Amino acid sequence: MIILGIDPAIRCTGYSVIEVKNVSSIRILDCGVIKNKPKDLHSECLRRLSGGINELVHHFSPDYASLEEAFYGKNIKTSMVLSLARGAIIARLAEHGVSCYQYSPKTAKKSITGSGRGSKEQIATLIASIYNLNINDVPLDATDAIALGICHANFYFSLGPENLTEYLI
Amino acid sequence: MIILGIDPAIRCTGYSVIEVKNVSSIRILDCGVIKNKPKDLHSECLRRLSGGINELVHHFSPDYASLEEAFYGKNIKTSMVLSLARGAIIARLAEHGVSCYQYSPKTAKKSITGSGRGSKEQIATLIASIYNLNINDVPLDATDAIALGICHANFYFSLGPENLTEYLI
Repeated sequence: MIILGIDPAIRCTGYSVIEVKNVSSIRILDCGVIKNKPKDLHSECLRRLSGGINELVHHFSPDYASLEEAFYGKNIKTSMVLSLARGAIIARLAEHGVSCYQYSPKTAKKSITGSGRGSKEQIATLIASIYNLNINDVPLDATDAIALGICHANFYFSLGPENLTEYLI
Repeated sequence: MIILGIDPAIRCTGYSVIEVKNVSSIRILDCGVIKNKPKDLHSECLRRLSGGINELVHHFSPDYASLEEAFYGKNIKTSMVLSLARGAIIARLAEHGVSCYQYSPKTAKKSITGSGRGSKEQIATLIASIYNLNINDVPLDATDAIALGICHANFYFSLGPENLTEYLI
């Protein structure tokens, strides 16, 4: 089972590709970021996000995508720009028939730290140690995406796929 | 010049296809809606919106898209769902190299009524009369999209394309 973890944002979207054989066999195949320039138009950012997701889907044929849940921030403009990015990404995943799930940042972090707390640095260190990775191979911007991928794997095996409808997008 | 007018929404997106030869020769080639079922998952709605836009682009090869500007509504959840739809639509248009512009509902309506006011019914009647259409061929849900298309044509010719950067998405 391949899970694509995605932490969407208009300027820097983190992603991870997780291979899961069973609850105790989780391997990180790839992780990284899709970056956009600060001055690029939103349309150009969305084109690049959509294209980046397309490449990942073609390369890894994921079964599931696990996205960070949208937060209702205090700044409505920021929340709406984040939703633009989510819309472009989810549309592309759905076109390819990849089922999309969402989890809160805290729920995702709990899959790594147990407490749901911890800085990006701490979580990156933990991930590198648990999954035998070189810490330099875990870009900080991708740690949330890795946590999201592992979170979906855990939920899938602990609750069963039929009990995850509340997380479906 | 072909302009695609789009009034985005997750459940019912209005569209129009406008052919413009010059400021006094505007023809409505097509208009309608992309509808989604009330209970469909957001991912399915976004897939259908993206696919619908794709078909329109393939069929009409528009030069420009004119979208309704996102409003910062009181209900942040509604505004964020609208942004999901916009994100899926804009990403697809950008992939095809269609330049995307946005205008407020009032600005768009002014292109038809002068005052920027008027119900959907009144605007549909005006559009049918000005553009020699059967009123039954102007679905109410598409009137805003028609106004958006005509608005971009008017701005393009009155201000010049080089002066429309503030409307670029």
